Amino acid sequence: MKTQSSIVVKKFGGTSVGSIARIENVASRIKEDVENGQSPVVVSSAMSGETNRLIGLAGEIDSKYRGEAYDMLLASGEQVSISLLAIALEKRGLKAEPLLAYQLGIKTDSIFSKARILSVDHEKIKQIISEGKIPIVAGFQGINQTSKITTLGRGGSDTTAVAIAAAIKADSCEIYTDVPAVFSADPRLVKKAREIPTLRYDEMMEMASLGSKVLHFRCVELAAKYKIKIHLRSTFEKREGTFIVPEEEAMENPVVSAVTHEALTAVIKLFPVPKGSGFLADLFGKLSEASVVVDIITQSHNEEGQRLAFSLPMSDLELARDVISKAYGDKVSITVMEDKAKISIVGVGMRNYSGVAYRFFNVLSKNNIDIDLVTTSDIKVSAIIDKESLSDAANQLHTEFGLDAT
Amino acid sequence: MKTQSSIVVKKFGGTSVGSIARIENVASRIKEDVENGQSPVVVSSAMSGETNRLIGLAGEIDSKYRGEAYDMLLASGEQVSISLLAIALEKRGLKAEPLLAYQLGIKTDSIFSKARILSVDHEKIKQIISEGKIPIVAGFQGINQTSKITTLGRGGSDTTAVAIAAAIKADSCEIYTDVPAVFSADPRLVKKAREIPTLRYDEMMEMASLGSKVLHFRCVELAAKYKIKIHLRSTFEKREGTFIVPEEEAMENPVVSAVTHEALTAVIKLFPVPKGSGFLADLFGKLSEASVVVDIITQSHNEEGQRLAFSLPMSDLELARDVISKAYGDKVSITVMEDKAKISIVGVGMRNYSGVAYRFFNVLSKNNIDIDLVTTSDIKVSAIIDKESLSDAANQLHTEFGLDAT
Repeated sequence: MKTQSSIVVKKFGGTSVGSIARIENVASRIKEDVENGQSPVVVSSAMSGETNRLIGLAGEIDSKYRGEAYDMLLASGEQVSISLLAIALEKRGLKAEPLLAYQLGIKTDSIFSKARILSVDHEKIKQIISEGKIPIVAGFQGINQTSKITTLGRGGSDTTAVAIAAAIKADSCEIYTDVPAVFSADPRLVKKAREIPTLRYDEMMEMASLGSKVLHFRCVELAAKYKIKIHLRSTFEKREGTFIVPEEEAMENPVVSAVTHEALTAVIKLFPVPKGSGFLADLFGKLSEASVVVDIITQSHNEEGQRLAFSLPMSDLELARDVISKAYGDKVSITVMEDKAKISIVGVGMRNYSGVAYRFFNVLSKNNIDIDLVTTSDIKVSAIIDKESLSDAANQLHTEFGLDAT
Repeated sequence: MKTQSSIVVKKFGGTSVGSIARIENVASRIKEDVENGQSPVVVSSAMSGETNRLIGLAGEIDSKYRGEAYDMLLASGEQVSISLLAIALEKRGLKAEPLLAYQLGIKTDSIFSKARILSVDHEKIKQIISEGKIPIVAGFQGINQTSKITTLGRGGSDTTAVAIAAAIKADSCEIYTDVPAVFSADPRLVKKAREIPTLRYDEMMEMASLGSKVLHFRCVELAAKYKIKIHLRSTFEKREGTFIVPEEEAMENPVVSAVTHEALTAVIKLFPVPKGSGFLADLFGKLSEASVVVDIITQSHNEEGQRLAFSLPMSDLELARDVISKAYGDKVSITVMEDKAKISIVGVGMRNYSGVAYRFFNVLSKNNIDIDLVTTSDIKVSAIIDKESLSDAANQLHTEFGLDAT
């Protein structure tokens, strides 16, 4: 028997509150948790589809506009879902207090649409809990120093949840979503993919930046900084999902924890490019200004001259080509490779084992899969390959590193 | 040529911002006004249909719930419309600042769903104007002293507009709606109804409480208190509508300004009732607790005993009957009369003319229309009659008092 109730932050994603029936389901789950002695602090996303509906309305007026009115518009989605969730909890005899960013003092910087949380008023949350009420916090939103509404970017509600868990030193942070766990590979691509019971923060961060859509990168980064244990689990089933924990708490470190991929990738090659870092700074400065996301960069040179290649999302390809043509089109030849994909392996165990990169390249080579670009860190190996080879590569790597479900 | 720009509060109702095309239309109108030297302060309702959509969502969970979560839910509607309006103004090269109640310090009491505005931070609005920006204020919402969102009741955005006009001492307050003016009678009932160019506050207040849906009672009350001139006009046409002004500014005072009506009325008669005010206090206390809206009350007695009759909206009839049966069913006989209507004439000119009530009763009598209840004030006469007689009564009274369009 628990003598003191544990404070658990519970974040519900858009599909978890995507209809009135689902909101009622979430409220019933929260009630059970309260009856089992928990003290929940709830964070909610907007109902699924709502944020896109609002983006659509703004887009009908001016699809390029970004700024305070845009963030205020999008933030209304969470205002609706937390109000409805509070009503559903009150209906079940619980006391609930819906809280917007200004009410909770979720302070951020002033970068609209991509704001970063600076602080959260933990006293306020603790006071509400001590009054026997359940705080229901609007995810995704904050206020800047002049009290304007900011938003944290897609997936930002996860970050809200972890920031609150850190601020109030919660016992844990549960992220409820429409998948039961993090998988060792995308089950649509790799039939033998299995659920991962435990992941280290580093691994989850790499996976987030390598294309796994399950958790927002900044959310994991923040969890790692404050050592907040995340439990990613399904809203629709009661069993446990994936725990994301500090490295020292992990029972075992498999060499590779997961195979991840990004399908819609392109590569741009430039030749000849001027030597020295001046050109690189100029080029990537211009691309960054145009909001092109550049991923892997490689440079090589032989007697013919200096070569540069980098990968980027297919969706940024046209824009990047325009920027480069305009700036250097008369001096540099541009080659574009579409229909590429990125395949990666991630695992903190790599740190303790040599030969992981060798096994990675060997698998691709045995399957006649050419590598365009490659990058490694101490816990991951990534390669750009042809899109047609993606399924082969993912399945073979998944088997090679002992991840297949038995 | 104007040397100093006049500050004009402009309030747009739900139908005025009911679609993206209409929001763009409003933005274009505001731009013209700016080009003509005005300094607009905009107040907007939610897009038409949105408030009902939100009420529907809450109702699916718990149709009886009212409280802070409900007000927070409904307030999201205005957050959407002011954000979109700000984007549409920015697109036209104007600087706009969308403002929620907490940002503008629209302070209210804590009566959720029916809150009253206590104060508005006029310095903030003036500062925004002085920075060359157009304040776009969310109507209908306020915050209480603990920063919780409150709402002002249906039509509350009109009240927001007048409160702001009063706080910043605006030159005028324009209420844009989907009708071109206030009419001398409902044009659907009286074919010869005409637009009224000028009305006094008292008249407009009487009309609002006598069934005219054009302006919210509290909005006019507030305008009268602070002598804010209201210009009620169409969003879809450019011509002037009705000015609502202090009595001393009105050019002429016709004896009767308008004929108004309420169709869905019922009457409850009780007999015998105990003498003295104790019973009345008890009865109307109980009805008020049950939120029954009681209108005209009359009492009479002869040797048989004391009689009481009162009118109320049809929609409250069942509830009222239940309350009365439960409390006094064993002592008092209850008679219910359905399908009644209230017909009224309103005009500040009555104060200076005798015989107005006589002419009113004479018209009804000549047309064989029976009167169930009657009430008068110095600027109105109202009677409860059979619903079938409503059209006759309205048209005959409209002619009698010289209101017919020529």
